Amino acid sequence: MEPGNANNVLLSCLEKNVTKQASATATPPLSSSLADPRGLAQGLEEAFLAVRNETERRAAPLSPEDQQIQSMPDASPTKWHRAHTTWFWEQFLLGEHCPGYRPFHPDFAFLFNSYYVSAGPRHSRNHRGDITRPSADQVGAYRAYVDAAVVKFFREVGADKLREVAPLVEVGLNHEQQHQELMFTDILHAFAQNPIPPAYDPDWRFPASTRTGEDWLTLNEGIHTVGHVDDSFHFDNEKPAHRALVGPVRVSRNLVTNAEWLAFMRDGGYRTATLWLMDGFATVNNEGWDAPGHWRDIDGQWQMMTLAGLKPVDPDAPVCHVSYYEADAFARWAGKHLPTEMEWEVAARAGQLNDAFGIVWQWTRSSYSPYPGYRAIEGALGEYNGKFMINQLVLRGSSLATPEGHSRITYRNFFYPHHRWQFTGLRLADYE
Amino acid sequence: MEPGNANNVLLSCLEKNVTKQASATATPPLSSSLADPRGLAQGLEEAFLAVRNETERRAAPLSPEDQQIQSMPDASPTKWHRAHTTWFWEQFLLGEHCPGYRPFHPDFAFLFNSYYVSAGPRHSRNHRGDITRPSADQVGAYRAYVDAAVVKFFREVGADKLREVAPLVEVGLNHEQQHQELMFTDILHAFAQNPIPPAYDPDWRFPASTRTGEDWLTLNEGIHTVGHVDDSFHFDNEKPAHRALVGPVRVSRNLVTNAEWLAFMRDGGYRTATLWLMDGFATVNNEGWDAPGHWRDIDGQWQMMTLAGLKPVDPDAPVCHVSYYEADAFARWAGKHLPTEMEWEVAARAGQLNDAFGIVWQWTRSSYSPYPGYRAIEGALGEYNGKFMINQLVLRGSSLATPEGHSRITYRNFFYPHHRWQFTGLRLADYE
Amino acid sequence: MEPGNANNVLLSCLEKNVTKQASATATPPLSSSLADPRGLAQGLEEAFLAVRNETERRAAPLSPEDQQIQSMPDASPTKWHRAHTTWFWEQFLLGEHCPGYRPFHPDFAFLFNSYYVSAGPRHSRNHRGDITRPSADQVGAYRAYVDAAVVKFFREVGADKLREVAPLVEVGLNHEQQHQELMFTDILHAFAQNPIPPAYDPDWRFPASTRTGEDWLTLNEGIHTVGHVDDSFHFDNEKPAHRALVGPVRVSRNLVTNAEWLAFMRDGGYRTATLWLMDGFATVNNEGWDAPGHWRDIDGQWQMMTLAGLKPVDPDAPVCHVSYYEADAFARWAGKHLPTEMEWEVAARAGQLNDAFGIVWQWTRSSYSPYPGYRAIEGALGEYNGKFMINQLVLRGSSLATPEGHSRITYRNFFYPHHRWQFTGLRLADYE
Amino acid sequence: MEPGNANNVLLSCLEKNVTKQASATATPPLSSSLADPRGLAQGLEEAFLAVRNETERRAAPLSPEDQQIQSMPDASPTKWHRAHTTWFWEQFLLGEHCPGYRPFHPDFAFLFNSYYVSAGPRHSRNHRGDITRPSADQVGAYRAYVDAAVVKFFREVGADKLREVAPLVEVGLNHEQQHQELMFTDILHAFAQNPIPPAYDPDWRFPASTRTGEDWLTLNEGIHTVGHVDDSFHFDNEKPAHRALVGPVRVSRNLVTNAEWLAFMRDGGYRTATLWLMDGFATVNNEGWDAPGHWRDIDGQWQMMTLAGLKPVDPDAPVCHVSYYEADAFARWAGKHLPTEMEWEVAARAGQLNDAFGIVWQWTRSSYSPYPGYRAIEGALGEYNGKFMINQLVLRGSSLATPEGHSRITYRNFFYPHHRWQFTGLRLADYE
Repeated sequence: MEPGNANNVLLSCLEKNVTKQASATATPPLSSSLADPRGLAQGLEEAFLAVRNETERRAAPLSPEDQQIQSMPDASPTKWHRAHTTWFWEQFLLGEHCPGYRPFHPDFAFLFNSYYVSAGPRHSRNHRGDITRPSADQVGAYRAYVDAAVVKFFREVGADKLREVAPLVEVGLNHEQQHQELMFTDILHAFAQNPIPPAYDPDWRFPASTRTGEDWLTLNEGIHTVGHVDDSFHFDNEKPAHRALVGPVRVSRNLVTNAEWLAFMRDGGYRTATLWLMDGFATVNNEGWDAPGHWRDIDGQWQMMTLAGLKPVDPDAPVCHVSYYEADAFARWAGKHLPTEMEWEVAARAGQLNDAFGIVWQWTRSSYSPYPGYRAIEGALGEYNGKFMINQLVLRGSSLATPEGHSRITYRNFFYPHHRWQFTGLRLADYE
Repeated sequence: MEPGNANNVLLSCLEKNVTKQASATATPPLSSSLADPRGLAQGLEEAFLAVRNETERRAAPLSPEDQQIQSMPDASPTKWHRAHTTWFWEQFLLGEHCPGYRPFHPDFAFLFNSYYVSAGPRHSRNHRGDITRPSADQVGAYRAYVDAAVVKFFREVGADKLREVAPLVEVGLNHEQQHQELMFTDILHAFAQNPIPPAYDPDWRFPASTRTGEDWLTLNEGIHTVGHVDDSFHFDNEKPAHRALVGPVRVSRNLVTNAEWLAFMRDGGYRTATLWLMDGFATVNNEGWDAPGHWRDIDGQWQMMTLAGLKPVDPDAPVCHVSYYEADAFARWAGKHLPTEMEWEVAARAGQLNDAFGIVWQWTRSSYSPYPGYRAIEGALGEYNGKFMINQLVLRGSSLATPEGHSRITYRNFFYPHHRWQFTGLRLADYE
Repeated sequence: MEPGNANNVLLSCLEKNVTKQASATATPPLSSSLADPRGLAQGLEEAFLAVRNETERRAAPLSPEDQQIQSMPDASPTKWHRAHTTWFWEQFLLGEHCPGYRPFHPDFAFLFNSYYVSAGPRHSRNHRGDITRPSADQVGAYRAYVDAAVVKFFREVGADKLREVAPLVEVGLNHEQQHQELMFTDILHAFAQNPIPPAYDPDWRFPASTRTGEDWLTLNEGIHTVGHVDDSFHFDNEKPAHRALVGPVRVSRNLVTNAEWLAFMRDGGYRTATLWLMDGFATVNNEGWDAPGHWRDIDGQWQMMTLAGLKPVDPDAPVCHVSYYEADAFARWAGKHLPTEMEWEVAARAGQLNDAFGIVWQWTRSSYSPYPGYRAIEGALGEYNGKFMINQLVLRGSSLATPEGHSRITYRNFFYPHHRWQFTGLRLADYE
Repeated sequence: MEPGNANNVLLSCLEKNVTKQASATATPPLSSSLADPRGLAQGLEEAFLAVRNETERRAAPLSPEDQQIQSMPDASPTKWHRAHTTWFWEQFLLGEHCPGYRPFHPDFAFLFNSYYVSAGPRHSRNHRGDITRPSADQVGAYRAYVDAAVVKFFREVGADKLREVAPLVEVGLNHEQQHQELMFTDILHAFAQNPIPPAYDPDWRFPASTRTGEDWLTLNEGIHTVGHVDDSFHFDNEKPAHRALVGPVRVSRNLVTNAEWLAFMRDGGYRTATLWLMDGFATVNNEGWDAPGHWRDIDGQWQMMTLAGLKPVDPDAPVCHVSYYEADAFARWAGKHLPTEMEWEVAARAGQLNDAFGIVWQWTRSSYSPYPGYRAIEGALGEYNGKFMINQLVLRGSSLATPEGHSRITYRNFFYPHHRWQFTGLRLADYE
């Protein structure tokens, strides 16, 4: 994944994922398939096609023009997401494990490599929106070509090879799911630039949230194991699991809502220097922020750009599209703090957090750093996570844009503190 | 027209233009039509449709993605050119002269106004590539809607009104022709950014040039009238015609060729500070220039991005895509100068300049300044030319991208000295 | 203190500080003085004058021109440091506690406030070098005026008030000591810009370092109390003391040396992307780094800008003037890590770290974050530390430029990861 | 001279200059001295010392701190001006014509070369303010050393050599006089940045201006010779003299006053886009201009930073510190234009312009271009003028800061259109 657009964790296991995503087809667990080569081939194929189809399903409402644009350097065109995820299969699965595979186009590796220095030179990140050809249709053909090659590979390659590449396939599936989330955040940002705001899907609705009367969950001091423990699927940044001292602290069961955010705004939150980190207040002033991202003041009424177009801000919904700087200032205004990622993980494991998953990623106060003893894996995929471990903050949970099954308690997402085009919100902590 | 993408003169007269462009239909001269209302209506309609169709003809080979992108702030998307030229008719003709006209879309005036402060607020120039909707198809519908309204207006409005708006129609036609040239330069720039360079038209060929053995035309000192004299069509920057002292000077009959430019390069031209204006050499170093624009060194062979894709540089062809800074350095290297725009005009009027029109615009050493006594016209169209009269240099002639009929001896095109994405070249002058 | 030039901790207690700094005068401990008003007044006066004189001693070798310049926005002129530390006394001690005090000059509060928003408007940080008047001499007069007023205040104010302001005086003393360190780093940076490198003091010598054969100190897992425990002097960022789980880890007893760094350089360290954090490698390339800060390659020999001028790099000395990015890349190259600030604190408390203090500040891998339950103090001094707790990394220990007595085990210094004009080095950790 | 800080013309002849400057000593004309070697030596020495002393006289009121700073990249420190003008004598006179001359310091050529690429590498222009050593005093010693060497050279070198170097000496004197003007403009800019504005000389007064009731001077069409005609001193940009057609035009005898400018301001001049060149209005908005340079609104009263400190704006005085953009907008607001440099020259030669010299340089509408047939002189001094002939506008006349004798009718000064820290004003022209 890339700096600033990554949710960098993976499925707790592929089986679970397959089950959830393709429950209609009742795929058997992958682990059981490992003993049964035919089952493994079939399981991989079904999981593969389910994920690949989801990418296309997300792109389907978008015109060739929509798929073309890159509305800021941090975002990427839909077309690029579709092609880059395809290149990943070509580069790491077919190119390295399928003798005789002939790439769809000799120059696509240059165009659609994202940032893997070890995988060769690549097109400049800031100019992805400059590539009008291949067209969206040609990228569709590229996807079909690679899909067919992968399926053929699964069917013909034999049990030993299948077992060898199964973990790589899992990475590829999870990688593509990460880009599925970005497809939503990036096109929403692009549409938000349009003075005549388009709707991705007019029928889309913001997910319902849960709210508990008893707000605060108390965590007494204790040593907990955090991070990913077993061999089920995970990203390298979730390892090694290690012991951590957590508490005493109280963590809010509830997400901060738009109503609470509007109170912060009415109280002059965006104009009060002493509530802000210094770098944060500089950003507020440079960017002219006076409300969360994608909000517009329409004749004195706050509206918010959503996948369904511009909609009135719902006071009861969790606040969304806030940066770390804003989350931190809000917490200070409220006389509280943000939780650490360890506090979040322990509370989530206790099953005590409303909307931990599926609405907004939740900023933590933890800098994105390697766990003690962390080592990046060997080869090009070693660049997946490790080199971003500076200047970013960890977010936990998952969002409305996260694909079904692509979330887990140990997942560590990360963004820069000024980023707010993702579906990001917060919950509070209290150390008193 | 806009800063940095304008060829700011108009047809010497609309009749001539109509004749050339629509010769197949044998349109009678517009001036004779003025006496004959039916003839005038028909002449305007035919001229209008000829120009409007040429715009669509130029856009036709381009996909929705191609039409979407803005590869740099100086360039605009094809789709924007198609929509902006349409807005011009809506704003200045239909909106002001056709009671009851209902705009195609209430927000298009905001989206597609280029820089006319007097015509209201407008979308930021640097973000034209962010607007994916309306789609290219919807812009096509917009064009058809306005075309029909204009034709209906011509047919129904009556003789007096027709005579009143005829000059405005001429401006609109010439304005659209200017954008036709930009459609070529802008899409060529966009395609040149693609590592896999596309062809606009694989069959396109660089126009043949003429070369005369006797190179130098001598102009003895004399007073000449320069600028546009009569009432036939022209832009305001060609006025007032005035007397100028020209000569003694010798002006080259021939354009500088790629072969000559390659000699300059081999002689270290791009690395020799003393050949350059200081601001020019700073640009060379900041931009890493070592050859004209759109040139690529492919395995030691210079190739050039053209409308037909990447082609070997033809030594006999006029050099193209050079900035003023480069033209000036070349002239110094050759022990010569660039001519003034007045010298060019006098020599061109004498019919002594090979390829004065139709291949490359020719840089002159004249800054783009108002002629003595120049006054911008009243109203929003007064912003057409006058406000750009600083920091730019005059180019004379016309290029391979200039539409048929849209060129004349008094035409003053202008660009910043670092610009080189237009079809720009040079001829030399000598004062010894 | 300010972002990017702060060593933000204070003396473990003022008594100790006074003892060390003014040992010749045998000042009795301040705490014992609290019972004895005459002793307290005398103790404060002696500590005050000792610190104030040290500032002037450091400025003494510098000409008016030297004291004028600001060689980059992160640095400040010597003259500004002398005036700003004086303003601090005027603003927070005399202005608030000494009725009838008349400021030396009505506009100095504007000129010499650094960043205290709550203390009123202030001159732009980036333009401190633009203020030629007051001159260095006038700033000297300003200092003398305020010194006299403070001493008079101590002598006349009475026991209750003295006890009330004693903590504030401690802050003021420690604040001024922090600027004393910056006076060295900033003038060294300024001198390093001069093609003819001046010496601050030709007789200055890099401090001798200690090296132990047995390198690695093992810390087994254990819960430790970290942070400042008692009421002796400290900065707010050292509080609250809290329990932390540390280990298992091995921490190097020794600082990384120039010889080791040269091996990293010879091995292509500065050119190998995979050794670097992505933001770090971007910095390397943008800044053209190929060696630590203030190093110059003189005819193939590495020399280093020091307070004594340009000197050959000593292979046995600890490496100095490296950024966090460089420290992190070096650790990765060595197959190791940087320690966390907690690991450093526990190891230092065990007395097992060579050169923990007095040569170079040591980068830790810990982001500069608030301790659990941290609250900034009320009022303008609440801006002292809290608002910088983002995007920076913690350094521990102290440096050759740190004033005598101004260091302690719980002290948290912090800088941005690209900063390297401070006296900064590193030691390694190992989690295997 | 440098881009953006040059008044690039020279004395009409050295004799005249010497006469004016050192009239007390009754120096005989230099030309007559050419026949009399003893007279020539003495004439050169007196002219040399007069100019050198004037530089020191201008620097005398400035402290070492004042002389140190560079308040923007376009300006230079006083100390640098003093050293650079001295380097010019070392480099071009002593170094090339005085065998055995030993430079004062081997590194000063690097430090104090301004922009002469041909004269070797040089210190970056933007960092002149970073060089604290040599001190102002040491630069004084440098000046005395070179002065003594030059005087000794004049006395000992012999008639033939003297006649050979006399033109070079003239260049050196005029070069130094240009820097004398910049010393005033640059220190005034520096002082204007200080919130507590210092006075260079409290007794300084803005020069009295002349105003004529009959404002407009009519120039009928005619051919005039413009540019420098004979061999008396001049800069290369004044050559070749050539014939130009001037008129019909009316040129104002009077400079535009502060009262007139205030009317423009009251009429919303700085906020009315249609009055401005597009690049000019962008500058107005980026820089936040709402009045001429160095003006401050003090409690609703316009004051102006002068060499005597902050003073109320005098409505009757000529407006000063306006950029070309502002001058052009004012002229448009007034329904007029700026004159061309040729119109100015013809009118000035007719003796019809009030305050043509000695108060403010007057912007013309002429771009700074080479005269027809212009060739830069050979060698490093060929960089003196030619390489700046782009993107700048010509100013004519001279200012209150121009040294006695250093002005003439053919002198061409030039600055970028946004520059306004020089003493620049305007007069109008009318083509109706």
